[in-house]
Amino acid sequence: VVGASPDERSTGQRIIRFLDRYGYAGAVYAVNPKYAEILGKPCVATVAQAGPVDLALIVVPATAVPAVLEDCVRAGAKHAIIMAAGFADDSQASGHELQQAVARIVAASTLRVGGPNAEGYLNVLDGIPASFSSSVDPEVGFVGIDWVPEGSNLVRLAAGNIAVLAQSGGLGFSCFSRGLADGLGFSHIVSTGNEVDLDILECLAYLLEDPRVRVLSLYLEGLKQPERFTAVARRAAELGKPLVIGKAGASESGRKAALSHTGHLAGTDAVYEAVFKSYGIHRVRDQEELIDASWAFSCCPLPRGNRVAVISWSGGSAVWTADACERAGFVLPEIDPDRQRELRALLPSFASTANPVDITGASQIGLADVLRVLVDAPYLDAIVLISTLHRSELLRRDFSLMQQIVASADKPIILHTYTRPSAESKRLMRELGLPFYTSSTRTVRALRALADYASFQQRWQASAGRTAVAVSDSPELTRNLSEYDASALLAQAGLPTSKQILARSPREAAAAARRLGLPVALKLQSPDLAHKSAVGGVLLNVRTLREVRAGCARLLELATTLGGGLQVQGVLVQEMVTAGVEVIVGIENSSGFGPLVLLGMGGLRAEELRDSTMRCAPITMAEARLMLGELRGAPFLLQHRPDGMEPDVDALLQLLVDLSEWAARNAHLVRELDLNPVIVHARGRGVAIVDSLMVVAADGVAGAGES
Amino acid sequence: VVGASPDERSTGQRIIRFLDRYGYAGAVYAVNPKYAEILGKPCVATVAQAGPVDLALIVVPATAVPAVLEDCVRAGAKHAIIMAAGFADDSQASGHELQQAVARIVAASTLRVGGPNAEGYLNVLDGIPASFSSSVDPEVGFVGIDWVPEGSNLVRLAAGNIAVLAQSGGLGFSCFSRGLADGLGFSHIVSTGNEVDLDILECLAYLLEDPRVRVLSLYLEGLKQPERFTAVARRAAELGKPLVIGKAGASESGRKAALSHTGHLAGTDAVYEAVFKSYGIHRVRDQEELIDASWAFSCCPLPRGNRVAVISWSGGSAVWTADACERAGFVLPEIDPDRQRELRALLPSFASTANPVDITGASQIGLADVLRVLVDAPYLDAIVLISTLHRSELLRRDFSLMQQIVASADKPIILHTYTRPSAESKRLMRELGLPFYTSSTRTVRALRALADYASFQQRWQASAGRTAVAVSDSPELTRNLSEYDASALLAQAGLPTSKQILARSPREAAAAARRLGLPVALKLQSPDLAHKSAVGGVLLNVRTLREVRAGCARLLELATTLGGGLQVQGVLVQEMVTAGVEVIVGIENSSGFGPLVLLGMGGLRAEELRDSTMRCAPITMAEARLMLGELRGAPFLLQHRPDGMEPDVDALLQLLVDLSEWAARNAHLVRELDLNPVIVHARGRGVAIVDSLMVVAADGVAGAGES
Repeated sequence: VVGASPDERSTGQRIIRFLDRYGYAGAVYAVNPKYAEILGKPCVATVAQAGPVDLALIVVPATAVPAVLEDCVRAGAKHAIIMAAGFADDSQASGHELQQAVARIVAASTLRVGGPNAEGYLNVLDGIPASFSSSVDPEVGFVGIDWVPEGSNLVRLAAGNIAVLAQSGGLGFSCFSRGLADGLGFSHIVSTGNEVDLDILECLAYLLEDPRVRVLSLYLEGLKQPERFTAVARRAAELGKPLVIGKAGASESGRKAALSHTGHLAGTDAVYEAVFKSYGIHRVRDQEELIDASWAFSCCPLPRGNRVAVISWSGGSAVWTADACERAGFVLPEIDPDRQRELRALLPSFASTANPVDITGASQIGLADVLRVLVDAPYLDAIVLISTLHRSELLRRDFSLMQQIVASADKPIILHTYTRPSAESKRLMRELGLPFYTSSTRTVRALRALADYASFQQRWQASAGRTAVAVSDSPELTRNLSEYDASALLAQAGLPTSKQILARSPREAAAAARRLGLPVALKLQSPDLAHKSAVGGVLLNVRTLREVRAGCARLLELATTLGGGLQVQGVLVQEMVTAGVEVIVGIENSSGFGPLVLLGMGGLRAEELRDSTMRCAPITMAEARLMLGELRGAPFLLQHRPDGMEPDVDALLQLLVDLSEWAARNAHLVRELDLNPVIVHARGRGVAIVDSLMVVAADGVAGAGES
Repeated sequence: VVGASPDERSTGQRIIRFLDRYGYAGAVYAVNPKYAEILGKPCVATVAQAGPVDLALIVVPATAVPAVLEDCVRAGAKHAIIMAAGFADDSQASGHELQQAVARIVAASTLRVGGPNAEGYLNVLDGIPASFSSSVDPEVGFVGIDWVPEGSNLVRLAAGNIAVLAQSGGLGFSCFSRGLADGLGFSHIVSTGNEVDLDILECLAYLLEDPRVRVLSLYLEGLKQPERFTAVARRAAELGKPLVIGKAGASESGRKAALSHTGHLAGTDAVYEAVFKSYGIHRVRDQEELIDASWAFSCCPLPRGNRVAVISWSGGSAVWTADACERAGFVLPEIDPDRQRELRALLPSFASTANPVDITGASQIGLADVLRVLVDAPYLDAIVLISTLHRSELLRRDFSLMQQIVASADKPIILHTYTRPSAESKRLMRELGLPFYTSSTRTVRALRALADYASFQQRWQASAGRTAVAVSDSPELTRNLSEYDASALLAQAGLPTSKQILARSPREAAAAARRLGLPVALKLQSPDLAHKSAVGGVLLNVRTLREVRAGCARLLELATTLGGGLQVQGVLVQEMVTAGVEVIVGIENSSGFGPLVLLGMGGLRAEELRDSTMRCAPITMAEARLMLGELRGAPFLLQHRPDGMEPDVDALLQLLVDLSEWAARNAHLVRELDLNPVIVHARGRGVAIVDSLMVVAADGVAGAGES
């Protein structure tokens, strides 16, 4: 502990005290030239004097850190964690310079460094508190938690399976402290800070492989190397370990704070949203939701479907919970007659046995008696118990029977308490391994998290052959393709482009129009002209051959006036596509996460509506269908149109799937692609790509128009 | 206490014990022929022997209740509460018979009765615990709450301003117990049960007038006399006292449970939703949300607008809260340069002063120091503090300064703690009168409740001349009007009906068509034919006079084949309205809440979209605009249409307002009105009512076609 001091409240002394209290078995040295001993540990002047240490916890102020790190390198230390703030998190230039100095030392050595501006970590499984967080402090963090003994005894936290990793130290450790009080079991808490070397992804990848860890919950502000994220997310999906992620910075003001907080640039929120959906990552919107979801994942088997039984000791809470279930897309099947008969034999006549099963407060029946009747009903995928945990008599009474039922249940059982839970109830629930929530909405939300992950895993298993995308392939040096060249590429890939012919002269244009049939569209073609409409380079609905010739001449003339050495390929003569619904389909491959496929509602006012969604390419038909379901406008413009027209939604989804596969195969080639608009015709008549804008690797493809 | 017994755990003895513990000053009698004294109170054989009592708390089983009530009547008791279940809440017929027996006794006497199936009430302000709820029990309900002394002392609950009224006793009292532990201050808790006599509305109306009550929070399953509700809601709006209501039973399965729970038929959810919105009632979705919102209303002044400052000791939580603010429609204005300069002088260089203001955990600055700088910024309507309440040093340090700031602030200040609050922190927060929440989403949701109520109050004040609707006017005996008769009524009211002429013969039809201009629509008119299209009674786009004659003849012929003595008025010849956006506008006046005006997206698939919203008539233009904002399809079909067309939304809103005023004036006449479709033309071209279906009082109006 470098920078330890005899001051009781100092960070260094706190850490040493925690190491003692948790019974850390290794040797601990204080490093401080002024003292010989701190808290009974030998105090040395330099790290080197402590011998080859495994981990140096550095608590000196920021300006002293580079020298300490040099000392660590000399001493052959393997790891160090820098706890001080005042590096890249500081708005002053000196902070950034200090962080760069640290980065240089890291680069020149084998030392691996956590932080700066990190609160360290707590390894619960192996009893290592390498942190100064007050949440780790038994005198503060565990007050009132009756399964963590208070006083001077050794802290023995029961092993749990939830690892929390946070780019904000305070949030990660407070999740631990709050969760512990509820009854959650944690394996590790890690605070990564400014991530000068070790980042949250490397920690995540490491913990993912630990068989004792089942749930990994992250507070994320941003990723410096997003390309590494998908590999870790894929691995989590393969292992069937849920990732729960709070990604902050969705709002404009949020982004500002993220920027200044740990020096991360929060990525565009829509990209993260897409990546999270693609890999079944459960996104949460605040800390409480993170704790709630982690708890359910930590304890419960996954449900096979959406069918829920609600069993309640309070009629009012049953109704509220049934409402919440319906809002969250669950159904409450009526309990079968045999089981209802069994329940009626146990319950007073004013109880209700259909579903919700309202036991009523007046009943003296136990939790286990009801649960036993319903738990193996094949048409139920999950069970919500609603009870009061204010008193624990009910739990105590048939505790061992409950233990048996919970242990052998193949579906999630979660509990909602409408009263403040007593300490004993919490302890008993913890021993049962049942999560509980103090709100019906939160209860159902936790169940939704389980059900969503279950259906993700089903989709994931079903598309086992899914191509791994080499996301680092995204081209850096790029150029635009003309619509003609882009269309040629898309047509080669079997995508439904419009019929079109490139004309170099009015005569060729007229001949092309004759072949295609009038009316036609005429579009000036140049790789240097990304937005040809904006300069008047597009003529629509050209109705006669004479107008075709004149139009073509006009466009070629226009090209000469645009200047700047415009490279002109000619004029594209294109069939006019009949009316239909306009959507936008695209590829975005600049985020670092690999190619993302986009679907959005189109038309003149598309930008005002901001109605689009993305996924990592390639996608399956099931994912395409989910994307459609996320567009707010889809019910009105594609699925249940007021005018009764039925657009060819299947063809649109097929286009999405095909394009996504093409994008995945061509990640090295394509950086950006806009198919805008894609026209969706009536059912059976398919879709047509009417315009396309593509940005490709500079050396990736010869323009068809140039060959 | 009728039915008291010496059994310690009996309901009766519990009540007597509570009355003692709360220091109830009046005389208390036990009533039970078997004993002479219970818990030191005189025990008598009949109520009459106790003399003229104010309140009889009846804890005997259901079957013994009628005899006890007769006894109460004889004794001249003023009030009684029946606590046993097994009345209308019981699925067996005998329960309903018992409740009817009770109702007969009530009807024949001046005795006012609460329950049956009620947990009674707790009057905190006057120290009267007329309940057996374990939440009221100091030995159970107050454990761990350090501002309620434990042990054998007299219970002295601080006076609060939140009244909770619940049709489910368990929920109401558990709100009390949970809220008390957080620091909420209550005035009354009332459980109304089956409401054989005293119902939740009468209790609400009573408590509303108590100047000590500021917030009234209800758990509602259904209302037997909805017509009384609007008067109470209006009164609450006038007094500026927020109503917080959890109305359960929105889902199909929820309704089932509500039905069997206390014998209430839960009303259609959309109607309640409309009424709540009309009267600024804050609807909550579960008990935790009810507690959260009640707390904010109880402590905070209302914000003047949507501009929020977020001040945080944790960067991560600041970002999350900023995100939540943006999702909830709040904005975070940047702090002005002068105040930023002031803050920078107080804060470390790595803090952020823009907004969110990130104090950072490393800072030693106090809450009050930052709050003092920002609290009077004129461009801030509310302040969210984010701090840790795990430790209370920060609060303790500048407590009296904080007290001054909070007391003099003219805007809401609420706090989010990302750590588990300590008992001392809770006590200090309670003394400060600041609500706090353990989730950023819940914090912002509470602020949203305040802001929504503030803007409702602004709208309410602005429309002070709003007609009070005599809601009991809704006609019972009704008949349909033909479209022609309905149109005539609407036209009289100045509403934009289509041009139309009633023809009794093919010749008259042709003459009418000549006057209107071709093409026309032909519609068979009969008050007995509500759905004329369904039987082929409508011909659209009739293009020649010859076709008009033939069509008219065909429709008149059709009428003779429909049988059943169809009363035929003739054939309506109507101009064909040009294309536009189809919406549905209507009046619904059968719910008992008075006329409701409806707006929905129309078209062929309208029923699949289920996209509509309602308000109590009359509405203002501001309310009409809010209604439009609630339609999911409005952005796509009316406001930002992909095809660029701009429908005349203003004309549509004006129609809604006009129709609502007409409906309010004619509540005694109209029971149902469907304008379907209303065509919204391009901007400046107005709207047209193309078809109408009206159900009116049987004796209310002579059909225009009959005159």
